[in-house]
Parts: sequence; structure tokens; C-alpha cells
Amino acid sequence: MIDVAIMGHGVVGSGVAEILINHNDRISSRVKTPVNVKYILDLRDFDVPYSEKFTKDFNVILNDPDVKVVAEVMGGVNPAYDFVKKCLEKGKSVVTSNKELVAAKGAELIKVAEDNNANFLFEASVGGGIPVLHPITECMCANEIDEIWGILNGTTNYILNKMIVDNMDFDTALKLAQDLGFAEKDPTADIEGHDACRKVCILAALGFGKHVYPNQVKTEGITKITLDDVAYAEKFGCVIKLIGHAKKLKNGKITASVSPTLVSRDCILSGVNGVFNAVMLNGDQTGEVVFYGKGAGKEATASAVVADMMDCIKHLEKGKILSWEDGDNDYVDMSFDPETRLFVLIKSDDFDGLKTQFNEIFGGNNTNVKNAENGEIAFITEKEKLSAIEQKLTLFKNGISVKTLQTML
Amino acid sequence: MIDVAIMGHGVVGSGVAEILINHNDRISSRVKTPVNVKYILDLRDFDVPYSEKFTKDFNVILNDPDVKVVAEVMGGVNPAYDFVKKCLEKGKSVVTSNKELVAAKGAELIKVAEDNNANFLFEASVGGGIPVLHPITECMCANEIDEIWGILNGTTNYILNKMIVDNMDFDTALKLAQDLGFAEKDPTADIEGHDACRKVCILAALGFGKHVYPNQVKTEGITKITLDDVAYAEKFGCVIKLIGHAKKLKNGKITASVSPTLVSRDCILSGVNGVFNAVMLNGDQTGEVVFYGKGAGKEATASAVVADMMDCIKHLEKGKILSWEDGDNDYVDMSFDPETRLFVLIKSDDFDGLKTQFNEIFGGNNTNVKNAENGEIAFITEKEKLSAIEQKLTLFKNGISVKTLQTML
Repeated sequence: MIDVAIMGHGVVGSGVAEILINHNDRISSRVKTPVNVKYILDLRDFDVPYSEKFTKDFNVILNDPDVKVVAEVMGGVNPAYDFVKKCLEKGKSVVTSNKELVAAKGAELIKVAEDNNANFLFEASVGGGIPVLHPITECMCANEIDEIWGILNGTTNYILNKMIVDNMDFDTALKLAQDLGFAEKDPTADIEGHDACRKVCILAALGFGKHVYPNQVKTEGITKITLDDVAYAEKFGCVIKLIGHAKKLKNGKITASVSPTLVSRDCILSGVNGVFNAVMLNGDQTGEVVFYGKGAGKEATASAVVADMMDCIKHLEKGKILSWEDGDNDYVDMSFDPETRLFVLIKSDDFDGLKTQFNEIFGGNNTNVKNAENGEIAFITEKEKLSAIEQKLTLFKNGISVKTLQTML
Repeated sequence: MIDVAIMGHGVVGSGVAEILINHNDRISSRVKTPVNVKYILDLRDFDVPYSEKFTKDFNVILNDPDVKVVAEVMGGVNPAYDFVKKCLEKGKSVVTSNKELVAAKGAELIKVAEDNNANFLFEASVGGGIPVLHPITECMCANEIDEIWGILNGTTNYILNKMIVDNMDFDTALKLAQDLGFAEKDPTADIEGHDACRKVCILAALGFGKHVYPNQVKTEGITKITLDDVAYAEKFGCVIKLIGHAKKLKNGKITASVSPTLVSRDCILSGVNGVFNAVMLNGDQTGEVVFYGKGAGKEATASAVVADMMDCIKHLEKGKILSWEDGDNDYVDMSFDPETRLFVLIKSDDFDGLKTQFNEIFGGNNTNVKNAENGEIAFITEKEKLSAIEQKLTLFKNGISVKTLQTML
């Protein structure tokens, strides 16, 4: 028999407890030993059938040598960081769904785990129920991964999807998402891209082997996306998705970003709808590989936590090999100037003047243009250095508004 | 240091050798011990830089106690089965890409591996470079998987894609696939669905825990699909894909099939194009999860073999837990009568008579109808028992031709 503990009994924590308790036969038979939830740490009281397992004192868990595996599902960096570190130092394996903690302290905690021959696993911290950590570190371990793209936030994907499919404007779609519980009352972390940014950090670290910090990721949310943008994207055979992206550069550094992006309908990521998430990786041997599933939700996230706990139980004597060094200020090339194609929408009350300027600056032939009648020109630039495109865009004179979006074209 | 051997130096085998030798630093550092390819078994002679490693005698590998991990990439059931079994009996871990072997002897070989505390892994046997085995057995291990769908054959997906996107007829698309090396000279195993059938067996065994034999899977290929079918599917917002399917039934049995199927453009599987493959699983906790990647190709398949070899190296002291019992004649319910919706195309030279009969048999209101002018009616039935739909279809009188296709609607 093996004793485990759960720290936190919120949405995910109660899901973990329910799976471990209600499906105990299934779990125990698959790890070939009875699994016993010995403690649940929470300061609150709960009226649940397993209330005898609750404790308010972290030290009860820390000091019980029978507890070999601990799930941290409290959220936030403190006190989670302190609790996790102390458990690892005692040789207990720790599993977490806490992306803030992993994005902030992942490299350090992996090192502590390694030093103490314990495991620190965090599948649930990226993409909820989508398997990503295991596939990257195991299935693709013969590959050099050089680029990662992801639809990493279900809330923004739900909102964009409503805009695309139902022609609903941003504010109405956000309100609906909130009413349905897909968006929080304060939706900032989702709609401004901060949540996706944390996941990009974790994915980049897993894929490329070095910690990336959130402030190293150029992050833009979806608040400026309009139904016009969505309609123009459609004309180019694209949909707008909030794409997290990380890429290895030839100079050994990386670049990382989160931005609303035009994705071709030919790309599998364009078909990721609603609250679903997906991660696409390019490996030097496999080529493109995609993992898709529910990015959030109690059961999906809890099942990823439980899977990691089961993995820990199966590997008690031996730490799994996760290589992930600490990052540094120079590792992310903040001034990287990619070759890219931008979607550009220019507007002016003087449509003839607009057309003249457009032809002077971009020429007539070399760009993919969709001309609107109401004083607008929408086009996709030729592929060139971002700085060169931006330089051209500065040439438009006053009275012309310029809006740009990234593309995966 | 750890010694490994490769049995077979064909397309996949040479890929495995190249990754292990050319990327040896990467592989060795990730498993934290130097990995040495000690032997390559092949009866042929090869002019390669590593020719000193070749042997024509299997017993050299079998009787060398330093060889801990063996890759079987010869293909075919014999002598692969004999070689693999003998290696496992000596406690060597074996990795294979051989779907024929796994579909025919998987349950037995897993048992032999377990009895000898060795590993028998076969990620590359399903979907080439797509991670499936690991995600099912590890990432989703807290779930009960109840249904599996897959686009499991790159050749047929390439052909169907050409028909859909380029309006190319079946014969021309097949010829092109052969010219490009995506289809074999004798394409029977692909276009008749036999290859997809073997993969359904392996997926069902992994997902549901019991061996399924190829003759228990109702298998239909894509040879009867026409451009008309493709055009009608489009009118219903669908594309035609060769879908492998397996489902747990309430009576404890399962059903399994391979058939050309109308897939809604809203389903992520509709966006799986070209030679790519995808597997979709439904777990009771996670909901739908999809894995997507290159289903074949030297590098992708070889990288999956090497990943399994690395996994074996990391778990030398301990067999991984794969539960997979032998199947039996009763396990697959061959007479299962699903609730389903069929695509039906009826044709007659007497269009008025056709319409009258259609209205009598299916009624006017309850079906999704696309009426063609040239003596054809295409429709999607209401959801009901397959037997009930088939019974209705028998009512059409002589002179009316009836064609049906499965749907995922």
C-alpha cells in the first residue's frame, strides 16, 4: 500500500480526491498496489464523505514518512513553493497543476527533486488534460524540438470561436463566457494573454531545456480583435487564434511570444474550437506532432494530476529524468527580428489617397490584397524581416490608421 | 554504458541506426549513460560507415549478456516472433515497429516480457511517429477510455485528400500516391483497410485492455469512394475519411470497425490532411483527446523506436506496467447493432418514381436531404438502429440503386 496526500481542496483538489477515492479500484490495480489518500490539507471545512482525511497542518503531511507522493493543487506561488520544496527535500515526490509555481520556480524545484531522488511532475500545469509533458519528455525524446505553437487558453479560444462562428462581438462573447463559467469575473489574465504566457514558458522550458520567465515572452491578448478582423481573416482562408509560440534560433537563443494570429484553415490548429487547447511541436525526426484536448475543467485537470501521481508511484525508487536548467537574461533574444508575413488593415476617409499611398509603399503586385469598398485595404505582406515591414508601415501619412496582426502563413 | 542491438536494416532499421549513431550525444545524455549500438542483424551486406556492427547470426545477439535492449524492425510475423520471444525470455527488453507482429502476438509477448521482468514496447507500430501508446498507458491512466477513433493510414488519407481538395479521381490519386512513394506497388493492404485494421486492433487492446484480432474488425476500404460521394459529403459540411473505430459496449464487449466515414468539418479529425494520421480517444475524465502526427516515414517511425529504446534503458530494473490480456471469440460483439446515422445515395432513371418511393419510406421531414437534379437523392438518415435503417433501404424497388456510407454525425 502507498499513502498519498492532497494539498488543497478547491476545484482541482476535490477532483483529484474524487478520482482517487471513487475510482480507487481502477487506480490501485493499474499501479499494482493499493493507493490510500491519507491526508487532505485545507484550512476550510468540507462536508464530504471523506472528511476524516482533512488536516489544517502541513507538518502532519511533511513529517509522515509513509506519505510518498503529494499533490499540490492549492494554486499561487506562496505558500505552495515552500510546501513543495520541503516535501521534495524529504524525498517525497510532488505533482502539481500550478502553472504559476512551475513558471516561476520550475527549474529550481526540478533540481531539488533530482538532488533528493524524488519526482516533480506537472503535466496538469500546461493544457489541463492534454498530455504534453510526457509526450515531449518521453515520446519525442529522440528528437531535437525546434519550434512549438499552441492554443493554450480555453477562455480566449472560446471567445474567438464565438466571434468567428456566431459573428458575436468581443464584449458579448466575453460576457457569455463569464455567464457559462469559462471566464472569470476578472478576465484579465486570460484575455490579456498572461495565462497563455505562463504556459509558453513551461512548454519552452520542457521543449528546449532551459527555464524561460514570463517577462521574457512578448505577450499580447485578444482585446483589440474586432469582427472586421475576423471577417478579413476568413477572406484570406484563415481564422484568428491566440497563439503561443517559441522557437530555437540559430544563435542558440530562443524567441517566445503570445499573440492573436491568423492561422490558415489548412493548419490543424484552425480546427481547435471552443474551450479546447492544442500544442503543436516540430521535431527534427518526427516533423509536426499535435496534442489536443480540454485545456481546463475540473475532471480533465484532476485526471492529469492523478496520472502524474500514478507515474510517481510506479517510479518511487527512481527519479524520472527531466532536464531543465535555470534560464538567464540572455537566453531569450528579445530583439529577434523574424522573417514573417503580417496581416495589415489600413483605413482612411480618403480612399483614393489611401490606394495611392498603398501602391507607392507596397506596390500592386507582390501582396495578397483584399480591397474593401469602405475606405479600407486589407492585405497580407510578402515574407520579409519584421523590421522591414514595420519600417514600410511608418511611411503611411497622417489620416491613415494602420492595424497589424501576426500570421502563421 | 549500455549495449543495444537492432534486428533488421531496412527503411526503419537504418533510420534507427542513424539516429542512435549520428545523434549519439543527444541520446546518451538524455538517458544519462552512453548508448552503444553493438550489433545490427541483417542477412544482406551494406556499405555504411558502421558496417563492423553487422552480424548475420541472431544467436550472437541472443547470447551476449551485455545487450540489454533490442529493436526488432524486420517486419512480418516470422522469424520476428521467434526472435522477440527468445530475447524477452533472456530478460532483454524489446522494442518493435512491427504492427503485424503486435496485432498477431501482442498479448502473448507482453506476458512473456512481464514474466521475465523485461519491457516490450511498440509505440512505432501504431501511427509511426505519433505518440499513442505512452499517452494511453501513462497520461490517460486515471481514465476509463470508452471510445477510440483514428485516421490510421497515411496512404488512404492522402488519396482521399487529393479527391477532396483537388477533385482528383480515385485511380489518378492512387497512381500519384504510388509515384510519390506514399503507396506501394501492390496497394491492397492500404486501400482495402487491412493496415488500418491492424492498428485498430492494437489501439483497442491498449485502450480497453484485451487483445483484438484482425478478423474481429469489420473492415472496408476506400475503393468504392467516388468524386460524387466527396461532393455530396461537402454539401453536408463533411469530408470522407477512412476511420478506424473501437468502442466499449454496455455488455462488457466491444465493437471495432474500419470504414470510409463522413466526418463533420467541425470535428478536429476533418483537418487531418495528407499523409498525417490522428488518434482520438474519449476518456471518462478528460473527454476527447487527440494525437496527431506523421503516421509513417523513415525518420518519424525510427524516432518512435528510439524513444521506446530510451524508455527501456531508463527502466532497465523494472518492467513497465502494460496490462493487456489475451482476447477471445466472444470479446468482440460481431452482431452489435449501433444507433447511427448513414449517408445514403439513391439513384434511378425514373426520378419522379424515386421521389415517391423516398417519401413513402423515409418521409419528407425527418431527414437531411440534398436533392440532386439528375435522378439522385442524397440524404443523411435520422439516428436509429443500423438494422432499422437497413431494413428501410431494402424497401426500395428494383431500378433504384442504393449506396451507403458511415457517418460520425
